[in-house]
Amino acid sequence: MNNSKKNAGEYAATLVKDGMIVGLGTGSTVAYFLDELSRRIKYEKLSIIGVTTSTKTAERAQELGIPIRDIDSVLKIDLTIDGADEVDCYMNGIKGGGAAFLMEKIVAKYSKRVVWIIDEQKLHKTLGQFSLPVEVVPFGNGQLIHELTQHHLYPKLRLNTQKQPIVTDLGHYIVDLDLKQIDQPYELAQYLDSQIGVVEHGLFLDIADEVIIGQDDGYRVMNKLQKKM
Amino acid sequence: MNNSKKNAGEYAATLVKDGMIVGLGTGSTVAYFLDELSRRIKYEKLSIIGVTTSTKTAERAQELGIPIRDIDSVLKIDLTIDGADEVDCYMNGIKGGGAAFLMEKIVAKYSKRVVWIIDEQKLHKTLGQFSLPVEVVPFGNGQLIHELTQHHLYPKLRLNTQKQPIVTDLGHYIVDLDLKQIDQPYELAQYLDSQIGVVEHGLFLDIADEVIIGQDDGYRVMNKLQKKM
Repeated sequence: MNNSKKNAGEYAATLVKDGMIVGLGTGSTVAYFLDELSRRIKYEKLSIIGVTTSTKTAERAQELGIPIRDIDSVLKIDLTIDGADEVDCYMNGIKGGGAAFLMEKIVAKYSKRVVWIIDEQKLHKTLGQFSLPVEVVPFGNGQLIHELTQHHLYPKLRLNTQKQPIVTDLGHYIVDLDLKQIDQPYELAQYLDSQIGVVEHGLFLDIADEVIIGQDDGYRVMNKLQKKM
Repeated sequence: MNNSKKNAGEYAATLVKDGMIVGLGTGSTVAYFLDELSRRIKYEKLSIIGVTTSTKTAERAQELGIPIRDIDSVLKIDLTIDGADEVDCYMNGIKGGGAAFLMEKIVAKYSKRVVWIIDEQKLHKTLGQFSLPVEVVPFGNGQLIHELTQHHLYPKLRLNTQKQPIVTDLGHYIVDLDLKQIDQPYELAQYLDSQIGVVEHGLFLDIADEVIIGQDDGYRVMNKLQKKM
């Protein structure tokens, strides 16, 4: 068994301090973080409040005895621990394999510090090998997909096993862009932001403050560029 | 009784030609357009297909015997007739009093030609007297409102008579920005587009091709600037 996700998730749990309001991400690496956080709450009597990024994480947090509150009932989130599907060397990333990325992006936006936990396989020089998900309004999605096709963005509506569109927690559809390589992530983000019918996209630019890369025998940490004085 | 809305609406119906796919807007002026369009379908045997911008308009179209189709089952919309809550001298506008503006914007985006019908009272030198509606994701709306407040955009969550948030046809909330005067509509649009949690806003910039201004005794037409050759 490969321990990289476990190593990243468990280390992330040590970053949580008593009294913090903590954003709880979604995904298989975050699952290890939640287990360890739950253990610390139980055995170290750590007192924290969690803000969840998906109904799945909310359910899991309740099973684990992690107290949670709605995002609008807290003042600010101190620290968010989340996964990512792909991260580049500038700490920009793609999220959205699990279709929870809109709530994840909202929680990240209102967090003082965002830490991603990933395994080595998620790290790439440039983004795009992982399909870029775009959350769209169901009304007019066919027209929008046609438009994105004409812009050479290779869109594909995400379907479930019954060939029906996946519906997100917030009632939207997901369109995956199969781009292979994203050379200009900022331009692409701006284009998608301005598209009518696009609710949000899975490009997370300048959002992570730290990335923890789990390896089989430990972890390493990637920080933001520290500017010279 | 003031005839301005009726004059604008009825004139707009004359712009519809046999065989067209027509976007059907929402609102009190559009209601006159729908009545006259229905009359032409009945008495002139006009054959058209309507694409509606709200459940309200869809219901009314069916009552009036106007055939409608889903936006994703038509190739392109030939002409859209819609109202507006405020229009400036550059034919930019604010829409969203009725909270259908997201669907209206999507229909407008895929229309070859967009005509607005308004009465004289809606015309202003600059936009902003009418509150600017912003359609937002319910999750985290309180955090977003706090952020918009700090940006001096005077946001207010739109509530129903039971003091509960209004929910749009697409499942979102509406936040109204009480700006009084919008000096830089393009900058504001870009700021709002880039905000996580904002689905869409009611600024319609460079969307209308023609504005029909109803008056008590007739109507007048405002066209786009015709560039010199």
